[in-house]
Amino acid sequence: MEDWLMLLRQKDKRTIAQAITKLENRDEEAKSMLKELLPCTGKAQVIGITGSPGAGKSTLIGSLLVHLRKKGLTVGVLAIDPTSPFSGGAILGDRIRMNRHAMDEGIYLRSMANRGKVGGISIHTKDCVRVLDAAGFDVILIETVGVGQSELSIMHLADTVCVVLHPGAGDMIQVTKAGVMEIADVYVVNKADQAGATRLIAEIEDMLELSGGKGAWMPSVIAASSQQNQGITDLWECLQKHDQYLKQTGEWEKQRLAQLYQEVEEELLLLYEQRRKTLMQKESFKGLVSQLDRGETTPQELAEMLAKQLFASESE
Amino acid sequence: MEDWLMLLRQKDKRTIAQAITKLENRDEEAKSMLKELLPCTGKAQVIGITGSPGAGKSTLIGSLLVHLRKKGLTVGVLAIDPTSPFSGGAILGDRIRMNRHAMDEGIYLRSMANRGKVGGISIHTKDCVRVLDAAGFDVILIETVGVGQSELSIMHLADTVCVVLHPGAGDMIQVTKAGVMEIADVYVVNKADQAGATRLIAEIEDMLELSGGKGAWMPSVIAASSQQNQGITDLWECLQKHDQYLKQTGEWEKQRLAQLYQEVEEELLLLYEQRRKTLMQKESFKGLVSQLDRGETTPQELAEMLAKQLFASESE
Repeated sequence: MEDWLMLLRQKDKRTIAQAITKLENRDEEAKSMLKELLPCTGKAQVIGITGSPGAGKSTLIGSLLVHLRKKGLTVGVLAIDPTSPFSGGAILGDRIRMNRHAMDEGIYLRSMANRGKVGGISIHTKDCVRVLDAAGFDVILIETVGVGQSELSIMHLADTVCVVLHPGAGDMIQVTKAGVMEIADVYVVNKADQAGATRLIAEIEDMLELSGGKGAWMPSVIAASSQQNQGITDLWECLQKHDQYLKQTGEWEKQRLAQLYQEVEEELLLLYEQRRKTLMQKESFKGLVSQLDRGETTPQELAEMLAKQLFASESE
Repeated sequence: MEDWLMLLRQKDKRTIAQAITKLENRDEEAKSMLKELLPCTGKAQVIGITGSPGAGKSTLIGSLLVHLRKKGLTVGVLAIDPTSPFSGGAILGDRIRMNRHAMDEGIYLRSMANRGKVGGISIHTKDCVRVLDAAGFDVILIETVGVGQSELSIMHLADTVCVVLHPGAGDMIQVTKAGVMEIADVYVVNKADQAGATRLIAEIEDMLELSGGKGAWMPSVIAASSQQNQGITDLWECLQKHDQYLKQTGEWEKQRLAQLYQEVEEELLLLYEQRRKTLMQKESFKGLVSQLDRGETTPQELAEMLAKQLFASESE
């Protein structure tokens, strides 16, 4: 085993950070590192934690961290901030609150910004998960903010998805509209001491009864209050129960294979995007665009012309 | 001019509906229809209206409809519901409220569900906009629900984007996190009679001052209350002002060309997705996947192998 991998397996923070940074380059070195990592992965429990801003995810993760450390478990946390496709900026704040854990050797924290690349967040996060998994962290928590595309893509990274809601924020509408329901294995109603919490819990339970659960798994609803450190024991029990369910039913293997499929698709899309950009920067493309501008051709026709240059002939 | 186009230009509702349905097929007939339509388009003012669920968008659109009809303007409304990528379901409700306008000859309403196709909503909606534009509607309103991917893609369909917010829903956080700020030309603070409205308006104005506006355009913030029919006159004035700005500065032409580019990209992505699916259903792909499953190859390597089969050789 190479030195870096040995240091990584000892959870050396510098080595972990370097490995993550190197994998980001996606060059030949990254490829061979990844191949060496792979045999050491597959042991961590990967948990995605999502929910709208202000739902108290970071505080909840903080409490869960303390709980898991008390049990002697090591934890990696990846915080993903959605980034505007325009500004490239990311909002801090949530991360800062988690910094009190940064000195603990059994915890590794990393925050990642989506750089707007196609498939960017998801591929990069998957590589980070592999590094932390190989480093031997027992639990890996992935935190995403808001409701949207990136939340759905967590599903392709996590074994278990935990959705955090809080009363009085129109959360139920968001849940049913944004496809959150289809990805949630565990619901946490945070700020359970606030008005409306009981109703929200009842609403979620009604909805779950109607939908009949997620496959053979019936998601649980946990009442929590980060302020009062309430619900954390229940939450962890429930997360473990889901892990057992996945492993006993063979769902874990199925899910893992589906995730690999998804990753191949994302990688291929990256390659496609590179090809497309090169093609659309060519001089010949500009002539086609002026035809489009004059209404002599339609976007569909133009795309078909480009496709002939881009794709291999189908006659194989 | 062909009969159908003549009937379409007279805003015949049956012809409009048939044209939209036929374009959806995207076959040879659809292509030639689109080419005939194109010379009749480019006159309508296309306005995207977006905001979180419960912000009161549909009621606002209802009031705007009444206002525009009183001014003798004809209006097309396209309501896009986000659909879970899993269930394929769509939530009604908002649409039903708009039905009282359905009998008016100067109004055309259509609700569209995203069928989960790549680029689906956006391409199909663009074709609908072209039909309504060719039919001679003065204003076309596109309504989307929630904050996410589809909201950003409105930008590629609309001349002017109007973001509807309401007090007390954590809306400001959503706005700054989800990239809404970069697409908004006009902000409407709805339910302006509720507590917190004044503060929300001030927050948006502060944020706009910090960002320095959207290009040379400084977005306006309109206080509205659909219940009391307040703010509609202001809103329409502001929407017209933005239209004038676009046309006087040449931004309109620039935006239109960028939209065509975007549409070519979406069309090409559709063609890519078809190719990719065909490739990944082949028998030979299954062998590669079992290598992946055994950890003998990485998703990235597998994608590179697939790319060789999928794309034309680059040496031209």
